[in-house]
Amino acid sequence: MQITSPVLLLDEEKCRANIQRMAQKATRNGLIFLPHFKTHQSATIGEWFREEGVSAITVSSVGMATYFAEHGWDNITIAVPCNIREIDAINELTKMITLNLFVASEETVRFLKKKVKHPVGIYLEIDTGQHRTGFLPDDYESLEAILDTVHSTDLLQFQGFYSHPGHTYQAKTTRQIIEIHRQAIASLGALKQRYRVDFPDLRVCIGDTPGCSVNDDFQSVDEMSPGNFVFYDGTQQSLGACSWDQVAVVAACPVIAAYPERNEMVIYGGAIHLSKDSLIRQDNSVSYGAIVDLDHDHWGEPMEGAYVSAISQEHGVIRMAPDQVKQIRVGDILGVVPVHSCLTANLFRKFQTLAGSMISMM
Amino acid sequence: MQITSPVLLLDEEKCRANIQRMAQKATRNGLIFLPHFKTHQSATIGEWFREEGVSAITVSSVGMATYFAEHGWDNITIAVPCNIREIDAINELTKMITLNLFVASEETVRFLKKKVKHPVGIYLEIDTGQHRTGFLPDDYESLEAILDTVHSTDLLQFQGFYSHPGHTYQAKTTRQIIEIHRQAIASLGALKQRYRVDFPDLRVCIGDTPGCSVNDDFQSVDEMSPGNFVFYDGTQQSLGACSWDQVAVVAACPVIAAYPERNEMVIYGGAIHLSKDSLIRQDNSVSYGAIVDLDHDHWGEPMEGAYVSAISQEHGVIRMAPDQVKQIRVGDILGVVPVHSCLTANLFRKFQTLAGSMISMM
Repeated sequence: MQITSPVLLLDEEKCRANIQRMAQKATRNGLIFLPHFKTHQSATIGEWFREEGVSAITVSSVGMATYFAEHGWDNITIAVPCNIREIDAINELTKMITLNLFVASEETVRFLKKKVKHPVGIYLEIDTGQHRTGFLPDDYESLEAILDTVHSTDLLQFQGFYSHPGHTYQAKTTRQIIEIHRQAIASLGALKQRYRVDFPDLRVCIGDTPGCSVNDDFQSVDEMSPGNFVFYDGTQQSLGACSWDQVAVVAACPVIAAYPERNEMVIYGGAIHLSKDSLIRQDNSVSYGAIVDLDHDHWGEPMEGAYVSAISQEHGVIRMAPDQVKQIRVGDILGVVPVHSCLTANLFRKFQTLAGSMISMM
Repeated sequence: MQITSPVLLLDEEKCRANIQRMAQKATRNGLIFLPHFKTHQSATIGEWFREEGVSAITVSSVGMATYFAEHGWDNITIAVPCNIREIDAINELTKMITLNLFVASEETVRFLKKKVKHPVGIYLEIDTGQHRTGFLPDDYESLEAILDTVHSTDLLQFQGFYSHPGHTYQAKTTRQIIEIHRQAIASLGALKQRYRVDFPDLRVCIGDTPGCSVNDDFQSVDEMSPGNFVFYDGTQQSLGACSWDQVAVVAACPVIAAYPERNEMVIYGGAIHLSKDSLIRQDNSVSYGAIVDLDHDHWGEPMEGAYVSAISQEHGVIRMAPDQVKQIRVGDILGVVPVHSCLTANLFRKFQTLAGSMISMM
């Protein structure tokens, strides 16, 4: 592998195994699998999902929906509260594909009622504790006002309730993740129960990778839409949502300076490659990524105690044990396991597989 | 201005004033101005520098050097320790332009001696306290070993000593910035004094925006290469390196949800637009950007107490005072002043001027 500057390596085998594992989990639990494509943003990787039987997907922007529609996906849910300023692009999309939108306010649904030109699916987003977006699960007044508006036009087609219980990312233990997930599922289940008389086909969908990875009891859930699991990363490993050997991407970065006297190396690989997302290590130091040795066609477990300790636009400073520093030379390549693979992939905008082929993103 | 999704607005007038102010400061102090183009990465904005008499520039990667060489810049310094794996691209560049490289290790200079095919300038990077890259100013043994190697071939042409005293970013007061800057200048001056007998043309160069903005005494310095000042940002304002009305970029983001009951709005504008760089506010809360009202063709001072308090891939949560929240509707546009404009510009990859024209980046 001839690496000259930072590249994002993709282990296709691990990635396909991650896709297959989650697809099988969905099947096992009787769930429709609506994988979120915001993590990989790639038509090529999308095809790996299709090979596992996926036919409907989730994205995070109108632009991303347009890209995947152009690549043959005809059932797409945009899992961010609808941006009404993009109504023209939304109307273009609904000419071609089945599109579902998220609604998190009454103003939005009133706007859509007036402006949509073709049928569009509507999910009501429920805030099950993350407090980012969505209605509280007992805010029946708002929910019913919206359902009334939706009901009043054939162009808005109610699909059901969705929640991304992203507060799983704050959990300290796997048990806490499961607890948060079950509470979210219970809230969604209660809403399903309450509104299924009027909307017998309504579905409930749940979306976070930590919960979908560790939870095994999906009760009243109909659909799951996790995204990050396609690659996983250091954050998911720290949460117990994956093991190190399931992380499918690593940033390969050339060493540009060595400081054995302070147990540090500097790589060409900074905030414009890795992002500035960070994790707090057990000793309270901040890490921008764990370090792996790269071999011809694979990487192993992270080196004990080695991590990216500081980051600027193009530089990453790596702290290492004295015996590790001694073995590395300027010009060597080190692998950095992303803290947050969605942001790292978004910055690299392409992948290089271990077999050496390039995979493009939107 | 018809904004449908997040765009990075550029106030050309403020930007040109920032360029002119720094160019005049360089002239006033008898310095060669080698502005760092990593912040804007744009050939168009590069021309605004040329109009102020700039003819040599600084960049942060071989790719960026190639882009600006293709846009007519023929004297470029790559201000990151030389990545020896890019030697082929470096040899291509030195066929066409005057190129200067940074050296921060003996291995690198020995490699270059063997591999460069055309003359290339060499700066020795000096670590004046940031402890990222460079030689300590009293590490004469290493410096002289490198100078001997450089001296032994006509292809390596010693330019002088460079320092980026980036620890100015940790300063708590403007006075601390000036103190750090003066110490760095004193270290560089001592090296100049020591080696000017052997290298009468050697120059010393200093590069950080906070120091170059607030310091007015450049003594023995010959060149300055700040970058961020072209736009400035929330970080520079908090350091006292600029005023709010000198910040030349603002991310315009549509409001997609409103939560008056918790004094929050949610914008379409997240980590893939703003980056995850953050500042600690006086009340110890974390901010991913201050908020401004956008008018047709300008923005004002940040709204008191309003800031981006949480951020995910596409969402930004904004905290605001109750009376502010009441005035904003879903579909409105809010302006976010970037915490770190280099990273924000790198993510947007283009600018929209207040006059409505688009400016592309590399």
